[in-house]
Amino acid sequence: MTLHGYFRSSSSYRCRIALNLKGLAYEQVAVHLVKDGGQQKSPAYKALNPQGLVPTLEVDGLVLTQSPAILEWLEETHPEPALLPTGAADRAAVRAFCAVIACEIHPLQNLRVLQYLDTAFGQGAEGKEIWCQRWIGDGLAACEALLAKRPASRYAFGEAPGMAEVYLLPQIFAARRFKVDLSAMPRLSAIAEACEALPAFAEAHPSRQPDAE
Amino acid sequence: MTLHGYFRSSSSYRCRIALNLKGLAYEQVAVHLVKDGGQQKSPAYKALNPQGLVPTLEVDGLVLTQSPAILEWLEETHPEPALLPTGAADRAAVRAFCAVIACEIHPLQNLRVLQYLDTAFGQGAEGKEIWCQRWIGDGLAACEALLAKRPASRYAFGEAPGMAEVYLLPQIFAARRFKVDLSAMPRLSAIAEACEALPAFAEAHPSRQPDAE
Repeated sequence: MTLHGYFRSSSSYRCRIALNLKGLAYEQVAVHLVKDGGQQKSPAYKALNPQGLVPTLEVDGLVLTQSPAILEWLEETHPEPALLPTGAADRAAVRAFCAVIACEIHPLQNLRVLQYLDTAFGQGAEGKEIWCQRWIGDGLAACEALLAKRPASRYAFGEAPGMAEVYLLPQIFAARRFKVDLSAMPRLSAIAEACEALPAFAEAHPSRQPDAE
Repeated sequence: MTLHGYFRSSSSYRCRIALNLKGLAYEQVAVHLVKDGGQQKSPAYKALNPQGLVPTLEVDGLVLTQSPAILEWLEETHPEPALLPTGAADRAAVRAFCAVIACEIHPLQNLRVLQYLDTAFGQGAEGKEIWCQRWIGDGLAACEALLAKRPASRYAFGEAPGMAEVYLLPQIFAARRFKVDLSAMPRLSAIAEACEALPAFAEAHPSRQPDAE
Protein backbone atom coordinates (compact mmCIF):
# COMPACT_ATOMS: atom_id res chain seq x y z
CA MET A 1 0.00 0.00 0.00
CA THR A 2 1.15 3.53 -0.78
CA LEU A 3 -0.27 6.50 1.05
CA HIS A 4 0.09 9.83 -0.72
CA GLY A 5 -0.30 12.45 1.99
CA TYR A 6 1.06 15.41 3.88
CA PHE A 7 2.40 15.24 7.41
CA ARG A 8 0.09 17.92 8.79
CA SER A 9 -3.09 16.99 6.89
CA SER A 10 -5.74 15.69 9.29
CA SER A 11 -7.18 13.31 6.74
CA SER A 12 -3.74 11.82 5.97
CA TYR A 13 -3.13 11.50 9.72
CA ARG A 14 -6.45 9.61 10.11
CA CYS A 15 -5.36 7.08 7.50
CA ARG A 16 -1.95 6.61 9.12
CA ILE A 17 -3.58 5.86 12.48
CA ALA A 18 -6.03 3.37 10.96
CA LEU A 19 -3.31 1.60 8.98
CA ASN A 20 -1.16 1.39 12.12
CA LEU A 21 -4.03 0.12 14.31
CA LYS A 22 -4.68 -2.62 11.76
CA GLY A 23 -1.00 -3.48 11.58
CA LEU A 24 -0.77 -2.85 7.83
CA ALA A 25 2.54 -1.90 6.22
CA TYR A 26 2.53 1.08 3.85
CA GLU A 27 4.90 3.35 2.02
CA GLN A 28 4.43 7.09 2.13
CA VAL A 29 4.75 9.58 -0.71
CA ALA A 30 4.82 13.18 0.46
CA VAL A 31 2.62 15.68 -1.36
CA HIS A 32 3.55 19.12 -0.11
CA LEU A 33 0.43 21.28 0.07
CA VAL A 34 2.27 24.60 0.01
CA LYS A 35 5.58 24.08 -1.82
CA ASP A 36 5.60 24.61 -5.63
CA GLY A 37 2.21 26.34 -5.32
CA GLY A 38 0.80 23.12 -3.89
CA GLN A 39 2.10 19.82 -5.23
CA GLN A 40 -1.44 18.40 -4.97
CA LYS A 41 -2.32 20.58 -7.97
CA SER A 42 0.39 19.07 -10.21
CA PRO A 43 -0.81 17.25 -13.34
CA ALA A 44 0.88 14.05 -12.12
CA TYR A 45 -0.96 14.08 -8.80
CA LYS A 46 -4.27 15.12 -10.35
CA ALA A 47 -4.05 12.18 -12.74
CA LEU A 48 -4.15 10.02 -9.62
CA ASN A 49 -6.63 12.14 -7.66
CA PRO A 50 -8.65 14.50 -9.89
CA GLN A 51 -9.77 16.53 -6.90
CA GLY A 52 -6.18 17.43 -6.09
CA LEU A 53 -6.53 16.68 -2.39
CA VAL A 54 -4.66 14.38 -0.02
CA PRO A 55 -4.76 11.58 0.91
CA THR A 56 -4.81 8.97 -1.82
CA LEU A 57 -4.25 5.33 -0.96
CA GLU A 58 -2.96 3.06 -3.72
CA VAL A 59 -3.40 -0.67 -3.23
CA ASP A 60 -2.29 -3.00 -6.03
CA GLY A 61 -3.49 -0.58 -8.72
CA LEU A 62 -6.68 0.35 -6.89
CA VAL A 63 -6.81 4.10 -6.21
CA LEU A 64 -8.80 5.19 -3.16
CA THR A 65 -9.59 8.79 -2.28
CA GLN A 66 -11.44 10.70 0.46
CA SER A 67 -10.46 9.55 3.94
CA PRO A 68 -13.99 8.52 5.08
CA ALA A 69 -14.21 6.17 2.08
CA ILE A 70 -10.65 4.91 2.62
CA LEU A 71 -11.35 4.18 6.30
CA GLU A 72 -14.58 2.28 5.55
CA TRP A 73 -12.72 0.34 2.85
CA LEU A 74 -9.96 -0.58 5.31
CA GLU A 75 -12.60 -1.75 7.80
CA GLU A 76 -14.36 -3.89 5.19
CA THR A 77 -11.27 -5.46 3.69
CA HIS A 78 -9.12 -5.77 6.83
CA PRO A 79 -11.72 -6.29 9.56
CA GLU A 80 -9.32 -7.18 12.38
CA PRO A 81 -8.88 -5.41 14.72
CA ALA A 82 -12.29 -3.81 14.18
CA LEU A 83 -12.47 -0.02 14.31
CA LEU A 84 -16.28 -0.05 14.43
CA PRO A 85 -18.44 -1.97 16.93
CA THR A 86 -20.71 -4.79 15.75
CA GLY A 87 -24.28 -3.60 16.45
CA ALA A 88 -25.91 -1.20 13.98
CA ALA A 89 -26.96 1.29 16.68
CA ASP A 90 -23.45 1.35 18.18
CA ARG A 91 -21.92 1.74 14.74
CA ALA A 92 -24.26 4.69 14.10
CA ALA A 93 -23.19 6.34 17.36
CA VAL A 94 -19.50 6.03 16.45
CA ARG A 95 -20.10 7.21 12.88
CA ALA A 96 -22.08 10.21 14.14
CA PHE A 97 -19.15 11.18 16.37
CA CYS A 98 -16.79 10.84 13.40
CA ALA A 99 -19.14 12.84 11.16
CA VAL A 100 -19.12 15.78 13.57
CA ILE A 101 -15.39 15.98 12.96
CA ALA A 102 -15.38 15.06 9.26
CA CYS A 103 -18.42 17.13 8.22
CA GLU A 104 -18.69 19.95 10.76
CA ILE A 105 -15.18 20.82 11.88
CA HIS A 106 -12.41 19.75 9.55
CA PRO A 107 -13.86 21.15 6.28
CA LEU A 108 -13.96 24.62 7.76
CA GLN A 109 -10.36 24.75 8.94
CA ASN A 110 -8.49 23.13 6.14
CA LEU A 111 -5.80 24.91 4.23
CA ARG A 112 -7.66 25.86 1.06
CA VAL A 113 -10.53 27.40 3.01
CA LEU A 114 -8.15 29.44 5.15
CA GLN A 115 -6.29 30.57 2.03
CA TYR A 116 -9.61 31.66 0.52
CA LEU A 117 -10.62 33.62 3.64
CA ASP A 118 -7.38 35.49 3.16
CA THR A 119 -7.52 36.16 -0.58
CA ALA A 120 -11.28 36.74 -0.98
CA PHE A 121 -12.23 38.33 2.32
CA GLY A 122 -8.91 39.81 3.44
CA GLN A 123 -8.77 37.89 6.69
CA GLY A 124 -5.29 37.82 8.17
CA ALA A 125 -3.87 35.53 10.82
CA GLU A 126 -6.15 36.89 13.55
CA GLY A 127 -9.39 36.50 11.60
CA LYS A 128 -8.45 33.00 10.52
CA GLU A 129 -7.62 32.03 14.08
CA ILE A 130 -11.00 33.30 15.35
CA TRP A 131 -12.70 31.38 12.54
CA CYS A 132 -10.88 28.14 13.39
CA GLN A 133 -11.45 28.53 17.11
CA ARG A 134 -15.17 29.00 16.53
CA TRP A 135 -15.70 25.87 14.41
CA ILE A 136 -13.22 23.59 16.14
CA GLY A 137 -14.43 24.76 19.55
CA ASP A 138 -18.12 24.27 18.72
CA GLY A 139 -17.57 20.91 17.09
CA LEU A 140 -15.37 19.44 19.80
CA ALA A 141 -17.85 20.68 22.43
CA ALA A 142 -20.51 18.69 20.53
CA CYS A 143 -18.24 15.62 20.60
CA GLU A 144 -17.75 16.07 24.35
CA ALA A 145 -21.55 16.36 24.80
CA LEU A 146 -22.12 13.17 22.79
CA LEU A 147 -19.75 11.28 25.10
CA ALA A 148 -21.20 12.85 28.26
CA LYS A 149 -24.39 10.86 27.63
CA ARG A 150 -22.44 7.59 27.73
CA PRO A 151 -20.98 5.56 30.61
CA ALA A 152 -17.36 6.31 31.47
CA SER A 153 -14.75 4.40 29.45
CA ARG A 154 -11.06 4.69 28.67
CA TYR A 155 -11.68 5.52 25.02
CA ALA A 156 -14.67 7.24 23.41
CA PHE A 157 -16.76 4.12 22.93
CA GLY A 158 -15.21 1.48 25.14
CA GLU A 159 -11.93 0.04 26.33
CA ALA A 160 -10.16 -0.01 22.96
CA PRO A 161 -9.49 2.80 20.49
CA GLY A 162 -11.39 2.72 17.21
CA MET A 163 -12.82 4.89 14.47
CA ALA A 164 -13.75 7.69 16.89
CA GLU A 165 -10.11 8.08 17.92
CA VAL A 166 -8.93 7.83 14.29
CA TYR A 167 -10.87 11.06 13.67
CA LEU A 168 -10.41 12.65 17.07
CA LEU A 169 -6.63 12.69 17.47
CA PRO A 170 -5.90 14.62 14.25
CA GLN A 171 -8.62 17.11 15.20
CA ILE A 172 -7.14 17.58 18.67
CA PHE A 173 -3.76 18.17 17.03
CA ALA A 174 -5.31 20.89 14.84
CA ALA A 175 -7.17 22.35 17.84
CA ARG A 176 -3.89 22.82 19.69
CA ARG A 177 -2.33 24.37 16.60
CA PHE A 178 -5.11 26.95 16.40
CA LYS A 179 -5.01 27.54 20.19
CA VAL A 180 -8.51 26.24 20.89
CA ASP A 181 -9.34 26.13 24.61
CA LEU A 182 -9.88 22.45 25.46
CA SER A 183 -10.27 22.96 29.21
CA ALA A 184 -14.05 22.37 29.07
CA MET A 185 -13.49 19.05 27.29
CA PRO A 186 -11.97 16.79 29.95
CA ARG A 187 -13.20 13.58 28.39
CA LEU A 188 -11.76 14.30 24.95
CA SER A 189 -8.49 15.39 26.56
CA ALA A 190 -8.25 12.15 28.57
CA ILE A 191 -8.93 10.07 25.44
CA ALA A 192 -6.26 11.97 23.53
CA GLU A 193 -3.76 11.37 26.31
CA ALA A 194 -4.56 7.65 26.42
CA CYS A 195 -4.11 7.39 22.64
CA GLU A 196 -0.84 9.30 22.60
CA ALA A 197 0.68 6.55 24.73
CA LEU A 198 -0.06 3.92 22.05
CA PRO A 199 2.51 3.28 19.29
CA ALA A 200 -0.16 3.22 16.53
CA PHE A 201 -1.03 6.82 17.35
CA ALA A 202 2.44 8.04 18.32
CA GLU A 203 3.96 6.78 15.06
CA ALA A 204 1.19 8.43 13.02
CA HIS A 205 1.81 11.87 14.57
CA PRO A 206 2.73 14.60 12.06
CA SER A 207 6.05 15.26 13.81
CA ARG A 208 7.12 11.66 13.18
CA GLN A 209 6.57 11.64 9.41
CA PRO A 210 9.38 11.71 6.83
CA ASP A 211 8.12 15.04 5.44
CA ALA A 212 7.72 16.73 8.85
CA GLU A 213 9.07 20.25 9.10
CA MET B 1 -39.74 6.35 12.41
CA THR B 2 -39.78 10.08 13.04
CA LEU B 3 -37.54 12.43 11.09
CA HIS B 4 -36.88 15.78 12.74
CA GLY B 5 -35.76 18.05 9.93
CA TYR B 6 -36.17 21.19 7.90
CA PHE B 7 -37.53 21.29 4.37
CA ARG B 8 -34.53 23.12 2.90
CA SER B 9 -31.77 21.35 4.85
CA SER B 10 -29.62 19.22 2.53
CA SER B 11 -28.95 16.63 5.19
CA SER B 12 -32.68 16.25 5.98
CA TYR B 13 -33.37 15.99 2.25
CA ARG B 14 -30.76 13.19 1.95
CA CYS B 15 -32.55 11.20 4.66
CA ARG B 16 -35.96 11.70 3.03
CA ILE B 17 -34.65 10.36 -0.29
CA ALA B 18 -33.05 7.31 1.34
CA LEU B 19 -36.16 6.51 3.39
CA ASN B 20 -38.29 6.83 0.26
CA LEU B 21 -35.95 4.69 -1.86
CA LYS B 22 -36.13 1.98 0.78
CA GLY B 23 -39.92 2.28 0.99
CA LEU B 24 -39.89 3.10 4.71
CA ALA B 25 -42.77 5.06 6.26
CA TYR B 26 -41.85 7.99 8.51
CA GLU B 27 -43.43 10.94 10.22
CA GLN B 28 -41.86 14.35 9.97
CA VAL B 29 -41.41 16.92 12.71
CA ALA B 30 -40.41 20.34 11.40
CA VAL B 31 -37.55 22.13 13.14
CA HIS B 32 -37.43 25.65 11.74
CA LEU B 33 -33.80 26.75 11.48
CA VAL B 34 -34.58 30.49 11.41
CA LYS B 35 -37.89 31.04 13.24
CA ASP B 36 -37.72 31.72 17.02
CA GLY B 37 -33.98 32.36 16.68
CA GLY B 38 -33.60 28.80 15.39
CA GLN B 39 -35.80 26.08 16.85
CA GLN B 40 -32.86 23.67 16.66
CA LYS B 41 -31.34 25.61 19.56
CA SER B 42 -34.36 25.06 21.85
CA PRO B 43 -33.74 23.07 25.06
CA ALA B 44 -36.32 20.48 23.96
CA TYR B 45 -34.57 19.82 20.65
CA LYS B 46 -31.09 19.90 22.18
CA ALA B 47 -32.16 17.25 24.69
CA LEU B 48 -32.72 15.03 21.64
CA ASN B 49 -29.73 16.25 19.62
CA PRO B 50 -27.09 17.98 21.77
CA GLN B 51 -25.42 19.46 18.71
CA GLY B 52 -28.60 21.35 17.83
CA LEU B 53 -28.49 20.39 14.17
CA VAL B 54 -30.98 18.67 11.88
CA PRO B 55 -31.73 15.94 11.05
CA THR B 56 -32.46 13.54 13.90
CA LEU B 57 -34.08 10.19 13.17
CA GLU B 58 -35.97 8.53 16.03
CA VAL B 59 -36.67 4.82 15.68
CA ASP B 60 -38.43 3.07 18.57
CA GLY B 61 -36.54 5.10 21.16
CA LEU B 62 -33.22 4.97 19.32
CA VAL B 63 -31.97 8.47 18.49
CA LEU B 64 -29.77 8.79 15.41
CA THR B 65 -27.94 11.96 14.38
CA GLN B 66 -25.61 13.10 11.57
CA SER B 67 -26.92 12.15 8.13
CA PRO B 68 -23.86 10.08 7.06
CA ALA B 69 -24.34 7.90 10.16
CA ILE B 70 -28.12 7.73 9.64
CA LEU B 71 -27.69 6.68 6.01
CA GLU B 72 -25.17 3.93 6.84
CA TRP B 73 -27.52 2.74 9.62
CA LEU B 74 -30.43 2.58 7.18
CA GLU B 75 -28.29 0.59 4.74
CA GLU B 76 -27.22 -1.87 7.45
CA THR B 77 -30.65 -2.39 9.00
CA HIS B 78 -32.82 -2.17 5.87
CA PRO B 79 -30.51 -3.54 3.19
CA GLU B 80 -33.09 -3.77 0.37
CA PRO B 81 -32.99 -2.05 -2.02
CA ALA B 82 -29.26 -1.54 -1.53
CA LEU B 83 -27.94 2.01 -1.82
CA LEU B 84 -24.31 0.85 -1.91
CA PRO B 85 -22.83 -1.73 -4.32
CA THR B 86 -21.52 -5.05 -3.01
CA GLY B 87 -17.76 -5.03 -3.74
CA ALA B 88 -15.46 -3.12 -1.36
CA ALA B 89 -13.73 -1.17 -4.16
CA ASP B 90 -17.07 -0.13 -5.67
CA ARG B 91 -18.38 0.85 -2.25
CA ALA B 92 -15.28 2.98 -1.72
CA ALA B 93 -15.82 4.75 -5.05
CA VAL B 94 -19.43 5.60 -4.15
CA ARG B 95 -18.49 6.69 -0.63
CA ALA B 96 -15.69 8.90 -2.01
CA PHE B 97 -18.21 10.62 -4.29
CA CYS B 98 -20.55 11.11 -1.32
CA ALA B 99 -17.70 12.41 0.85
CA VAL B 100 -16.84 15.12 -1.67
CA ILE B 101 -20.35 16.46 -1.10
CA ALA B 102 -20.61 15.73 2.64
CA CYS B 103 -17.08 16.82 3.61
CA GLU B 104 -16.00 19.33 0.97
CA ILE B 105 -19.08 21.19 -0.21
CA HIS B 106 -22.04 21.08 2.14
CA PRO B 107 -20.22 22.10 5.37
CA LEU B 108 -19.11 25.34 3.75
CA GLN B 109 -22.50 26.48 2.55
CA ASN B 110 -24.76 25.60 5.41
CA LEU B 111 -26.79 28.20 7.23
CA ARG B 112 -24.71 28.67 10.37
CA VAL B 113 -21.52 29.19 8.36
CA LEU B 114 -23.19 31.77 6.14
CA GLN B 115 -24.60 33.53 9.21
CA TYR B 116 -21.10 33.62 10.69
CA LEU B 117 -19.56 35.06 7.51
CA ASP B 118 -22.10 37.85 7.90
CA THR B 119 -21.74 38.58 11.61
CA ALA B 120 -17.98 38.02 12.02
CA PHE B 121 -16.62 39.12 8.65
CA GLY B 122 -19.36 41.49 7.47
CA GLN B 123 -20.08 39.56 4.29
CA GLY B 124 -23.45 40.48 2.80
CA ALA B 125 -25.51 38.64 0.21
CA GLU B 126 -22.94 39.13 -2.54
CA GLY B 127 -19.95 37.88 -0.55
CA LYS B 128 -21.88 34.87 0.64
CA GLU B 129 -22.98 34.03 -2.90
CA ILE B 130 -19.39 34.19 -4.19
CA TRP B 131 -18.32 31.96 -1.29
CA CYS B 132 -21.02 29.39 -2.04
CA GLN B 133 -20.39 29.43 -5.75
CA ARG B 134 -16.71 28.80 -5.16
CA TRP B 135 -17.12 25.74 -2.92
CA ILE B 136 -20.17 24.24 -4.59
CA GLY B 137 -18.69 24.86 -8.04
CA ASP B 138 -15.31 23.33 -7.16
CA GLY B 139 -16.84 20.35 -5.40
CA LEU B 140 -19.37 19.49 -8.07
CA ALA B 141 -16.66 19.84 -10.72
CA ALA B 142 -14.70 17.22 -8.74
CA CYS B 143 -17.78 14.96 -8.71
CA GLU B 144 -18.15 15.39 -12.48
CA ALA B 145 -14.45 14.51 -12.90
CA LEU B 146 -14.82 11.38 -10.77
CA LEU B 147 -17.66 10.19 -13.01
CA ALA B 148 -15.84 11.12 -16.22
CA LYS B 149 -13.38 8.29 -15.48
CA ARG B 150 -16.23 5.75 -15.47
CA PRO B 151 -18.25 4.15 -18.27
CA ALA B 152 -21.49 5.92 -19.19
CA SER B 153 -24.53 4.95 -17.11
CA ARG B 154 -27.98 6.37 -16.38
CA TYR B 155 -27.10 7.11 -12.76
CA ALA B 156 -23.73 7.92 -11.20
CA PHE B 157 -22.66 4.34 -10.57
CA GLY B 158 -24.96 2.21 -12.66
CA GLU B 159 -28.51 1.78 -13.83
CA ALA B 160 -30.21 2.38 -10.48
CA PRO B 161 -29.98 5.36 -8.13
CA GLY B 162 -28.17 4.85 -4.84
CA MET B 163 -26.14 6.59 -2.17
CA ALA B 164 -24.42 8.89 -4.71
CA GLU B 165 -27.79 10.31 -5.76
CA VAL B 166 -28.96 10.56 -2.14
CA TYR B 167 -26.14 13.09 -1.63
CA LEU B 168 -26.12 14.61 -5.11
CA LEU B 169 -29.72 15.77 -5.53
CA PRO B 170 -29.82 17.95 -2.39
CA GLN B 171 -26.49 19.46 -3.42
CA ILE B 172 -27.78 20.23 -6.93
CA PHE B 173 -30.82 21.87 -5.32
CA ALA B 174 -28.51 24.08 -3.23
CA ALA B 175 -26.33 24.79 -6.27
CA ARG B 176 -29.33 26.17 -8.15
CA ARG B 177 -30.35 28.22 -5.13
CA PHE B 178 -26.91 29.84 -5.03
CA LYS B 179 -26.87 30.29 -8.83
CA VAL B 180 -23.91 27.99 -9.45
CA ASP B 181 -23.18 27.49 -13.16
CA LEU B 182 -23.76 23.79 -13.86
CA SER B 183 -23.27 24.01 -17.63
CA ALA B 184 -19.83 22.33 -17.45
CA MET B 185 -21.34 19.38 -15.55
CA PRO B 186 -23.48 17.57 -18.13
CA ARG B 187 -23.25 14.22 -16.44
CA LEU B 188 -24.39 15.47 -13.03
CA SER B 189 -27.20 17.42 -14.71
CA ALA B 190 -28.42 14.33 -16.58
CA ILE B 191 -28.36 12.26 -13.37
CA ALA B 192 -30.34 14.95 -11.54
CA GLU B 193 -32.92 15.01 -14.32
CA ALA B 194 -33.27 11.22 -14.27
CA CYS B 195 -33.75 11.26 -10.49
CA GLU B 196 -36.29 14.06 -10.54
CA ALA B 197 -38.59 11.82 -12.58
CA LEU B 198 -38.65 9.20 -9.78
CA PRO B 199 -41.28 9.46 -7.00
CA ALA B 200 -38.73 8.71 -4.24
CA PHE B 201 -36.82 11.86 -5.20
CA ALA B 202 -39.78 14.01 -6.22
CA GLU B 203 -41.58 13.40 -2.93
CA ALA B 204 -38.43 14.23 -0.94
CA HIS B 205 -38.02 17.62 -2.63
CA PRO B 206 -38.05 20.61 -0.25
CA SER B 207 -41.03 22.16 -2.03
CA ARG B 208 -43.13 19.08 -1.27
CA GLN B 209 -42.58 19.05 2.50
CA PRO B 210 -45.24 20.05 5.06
CA ASP B 211 -43.03 22.90 6.33
CA ALA B 212 -42.16 24.25 2.85
CA GLU B 213 -42.40 28.01 2.45
